[in-house]
Amino acid sequence: MNRVDLNADMGESFGPWKMGDDATLLKTVTSANIACGAHAGDPDVMVATMRTAHANGVGIGTHPGFADLQGFGRRRMSVPRASLQNSIRYQVAASVGVAKSIGARVRHLKLHGALANMASEDDTLARDLFEAALSVDPDLIVMVLCATAQEEAVRALGCSYAGEIFADRAYNDDATLVDRSLPGAVIHDPQIAGPRMVEMVQAGAIITESGKRIKTSIDTICLHGDTPTAVEIARSVRTALEGADIAVRQFDGRRH
Amino acid sequence: MNRVDLNADMGESFGPWKMGDDATLLKTVTSANIACGAHAGDPDVMVATMRTAHANGVGIGTHPGFADLQGFGRRRMSVPRASLQNSIRYQVAASVGVAKSIGARVRHLKLHGALANMASEDDTLARDLFEAALSVDPDLIVMVLCATAQEEAVRALGCSYAGEIFADRAYNDDATLVDRSLPGAVIHDPQIAGPRMVEMVQAGAIITESGKRIKTSIDTICLHGDTPTAVEIARSVRTALEGADIAVRQFDGRRH
Amino acid sequence: MNRVDLNADMGESFGPWKMGDDATLLKTVTSANIACGAHAGDPDVMVATMRTAHANGVGIGTHPGFADLQGFGRRRMSVPRASLQNSIRYQVAASVGVAKSIGARVRHLKLHGALANMASEDDTLARDLFEAALSVDPDLIVMVLCATAQEEAVRALGCSYAGEIFADRAYNDDATLVDRSLPGAVIHDPQIAGPRMVEMVQAGAIITESGKRIKTSIDTICLHGDTPTAVEIARSVRTALEGADIAVRQFDGRRH
Amino acid sequence: MNRVDLNADMGESFGPWKMGDDATLLKTVTSANIACGAHAGDPDVMVATMRTAHANGVGIGTHPGFADLQGFGRRRMSVPRASLQNSIRYQVAASVGVAKSIGARVRHLKLHGALANMASEDDTLARDLFEAALSVDPDLIVMVLCATAQEEAVRALGCSYAGEIFADRAYNDDATLVDRSLPGAVIHDPQIAGPRMVEMVQAGAIITESGKRIKTSIDTICLHGDTPTAVEIARSVRTALEGADIAVRQFDGRRH
Repeated sequence: MNRVDLNADMGESFGPWKMGDDATLLKTVTSANIACGAHAGDPDVMVATMRTAHANGVGIGTHPGFADLQGFGRRRMSVPRASLQNSIRYQVAASVGVAKSIGARVRHLKLHGALANMASEDDTLARDLFEAALSVDPDLIVMVLCATAQEEAVRALGCSYAGEIFADRAYNDDATLVDRSLPGAVIHDPQIAGPRMVEMVQAGAIITESGKRIKTSIDTICLHGDTPTAVEIARSVRTALEGADIAVRQFDGRRH
Repeated sequence: MNRVDLNADMGESFGPWKMGDDATLLKTVTSANIACGAHAGDPDVMVATMRTAHANGVGIGTHPGFADLQGFGRRRMSVPRASLQNSIRYQVAASVGVAKSIGARVRHLKLHGALANMASEDDTLARDLFEAALSVDPDLIVMVLCATAQEEAVRALGCSYAGEIFADRAYNDDATLVDRSLPGAVIHDPQIAGPRMVEMVQAGAIITESGKRIKTSIDTICLHGDTPTAVEIARSVRTALEGADIAVRQFDGRRH
Repeated sequence: MNRVDLNADMGESFGPWKMGDDATLLKTVTSANIACGAHAGDPDVMVATMRTAHANGVGIGTHPGFADLQGFGRRRMSVPRASLQNSIRYQVAASVGVAKSIGARVRHLKLHGALANMASEDDTLARDLFEAALSVDPDLIVMVLCATAQEEAVRALGCSYAGEIFADRAYNDDATLVDRSLPGAVIHDPQIAGPRMVEMVQAGAIITESGKRIKTSIDTICLHGDTPTAVEIARSVRTALEGADIAVRQFDGRRH
Repeated sequence: MNRVDLNADMGESFGPWKMGDDATLLKTVTSANIACGAHAGDPDVMVATMRTAHANGVGIGTHPGFADLQGFGRRRMSVPRASLQNSIRYQVAASVGVAKSIGARVRHLKLHGALANMASEDDTLARDLFEAALSVDPDLIVMVLCATAQEEAVRALGCSYAGEIFADRAYNDDATLVDRSLPGAVIHDPQIAGPRMVEMVQAGAIITESGKRIKTSIDTICLHGDTPTAVEIARSVRTALEGADIAVRQFDGRRH
């Protein structure tokens, strides 16, 4: 039987500012990428989110990004490589230890925002960042964007990983995402998102806008938490998958 | 034979700003209290300081404080207890994981600045903060200011601890420090600091300004790193101790 | 004819995080207290909020607080007096110049959060902070909590000021606010808030929980922007005032 | 008679961390570029530095940069144009108002670090940033790197400006600076810096490493404050200029 994991970014509130409806999403997803206090999140938010994820049996992930709170880690920054690696070490360390302090543990790593985009284009960068994370915890399962430089990096490292596709983004024929400024780039309709994911998981391939199929290992589907229809899309995807006999379960991590 | 540890605060540089002469002090001390990025320090500084401490065989400590960079953690803040505990969890976690990432480990905990002062006056606060730290790593040796509420807290917790006195501060008869604004409160003369520490360690007591002796367990002596005579005082203390056949060695941690 | 101003805190979003419904509230209030980037707000939020306020003919106020983003300026901090004054200078300066850069101007000052609470209890602190603000712009109208140390301070300074009461908070007999933890401290019912404000403005007095009347100069009513019923309460208050022939207009500032 | 201004970056300390020897440099320079609290500086540092500059008759400049404290504004960031302009507005506003609050005023603007480098390569960016600054205070004299896109921008704007060269950096034949990683890029020898500046000012030209002369308007010479020989180089340059009958005086600002 086919199976797939559902993941979403969480723990992105900060101080008095709320973002997303984590409590509701945590009833639908199987893995949560929890911000580390650099681009979003704070120690209170981290502890609360990890506690709820743990109580719901949702896998906890560390989700480091650029230390740029105002920009939410979405602005590219020219940071020296060693400094970026140290930032990753710090953020992953904070996640791992905070999880431990509440009796939970961090299972996976996912890069955030501009850092994730940069690592998708540059396998050396991806490898350097993943190595920094693994130096804190070698058992982390590295979540990678399918068919990007991130995937090349984990294959080269030989570490455990999980391949990810997006529920709500259209793909170009080279497996990159259709630019957000173009029509159809973001899928807002829960009725479309679900069947589309079923099709890709059953095909074991990314299906691009033009209909092209790019074979890849789909271990997890990314659901966004910060859009108006986030919760609806999440439920629609889960219902569609289950209706097609695709088990929604945490990934185990694969190696090549 | 008597023995004692020498500790100093380190890793308090931030970005382009340098503080103290860590490299030199690391040749004299046996334990280093390394800032966690909240009141001082950043991931680059943490990694570099931990690497040098580790290479010098100096024990690494996590040194959390208020998340107030401009105030260097020296300004008291009214933070809800649970939020303070989460901040401690986060900072200790960052230290523990960053140390692990470079092949080292965190041996001890020491509170910084205003947080340390508040915990010296309030054993419930001290206990709550120490518990938060121990929830990340139960093997941490908690460094406490001798004969304060911090010491009461570790005795109540039953955790491993090390008692600390200051090399360069005069004491009142209730074991509190003479206020910095008073004459003689801070000892700047390396010729006085050394013999004074020998006397206290041999007596197993804090000797106050008035000459009163307060029996206590002196496991470590705090040397300050950010004063003009810091390095000289550190060397003077070490030389005086060794000249009096007091071994300068890392503490093991004690329990009562 | 009686008249009164309606004010609300605004511009408290930060980066990607939204707070309150400023656009809607700006159609009801006559004065907006706009965060300065220390406890909340950022340059983008300040510019956008000031532009909308200006376009709506709403008076722009500078709203400085403790530089504590995570705590939203609600946590008391022990900051040296001169340093607090410099922080006020900086924040007020930022507001004044940003307003000027978009063709608007800052009319009034209102302290935020813990800083406001501290200044309500300590007239020397209040005076020091108001003087710091007036050193940037001597024409600022200082908004003060009626019948508190803030009011004493502006009277001593002889500067222009406006007295403020809260639409949604119950008062003790000494003109302090009923503690938020007590029942009835916060008024959530728009049907009560409106008539209550009419009564106070017509009486020229704070009416306490016990029914006591404390004569004071009510120039403006504070509406909160961050509660679920904020917009409803705001409209209810405005409608009730206008129905009682109380003109809702910006304050001019008074001197004693 | 020839004349030229001497400028240096100042007010770059932060909280407990000191940078440079501002008090000494302020006896040598005629203009000070004072950090605005984004890449360096804080309200206390700004007030203290402006007070000393004012007392020494040194012209006060606002010196905005990327809001990246750890990176000291030296890391390029991809910030949306409007957001960058708002950041400039905010920082310039803070400078202008803080100066006013101590009875001084801001005369000039100079961009800092990575922002300055980016504006030197892109005249549209330079113009957008200068316009943002001028929207706060249209009388600011804009300090530009001679013969770069910054100079093109001020000419297009028609605003008052002052052209700047570096005392301690070698130039390529296209008027860009020799990369810091190359030998001879930075001039550390005070004996060389002085005569070199005399030659350029008398020639009214940048003299490149190869000996090429690039005619330009040299109104001010940048002295760095954060190198070990900063104070020596500053004095050497001033002494050499005065010895060659070049008056060291604040620029007036020029227009073309």
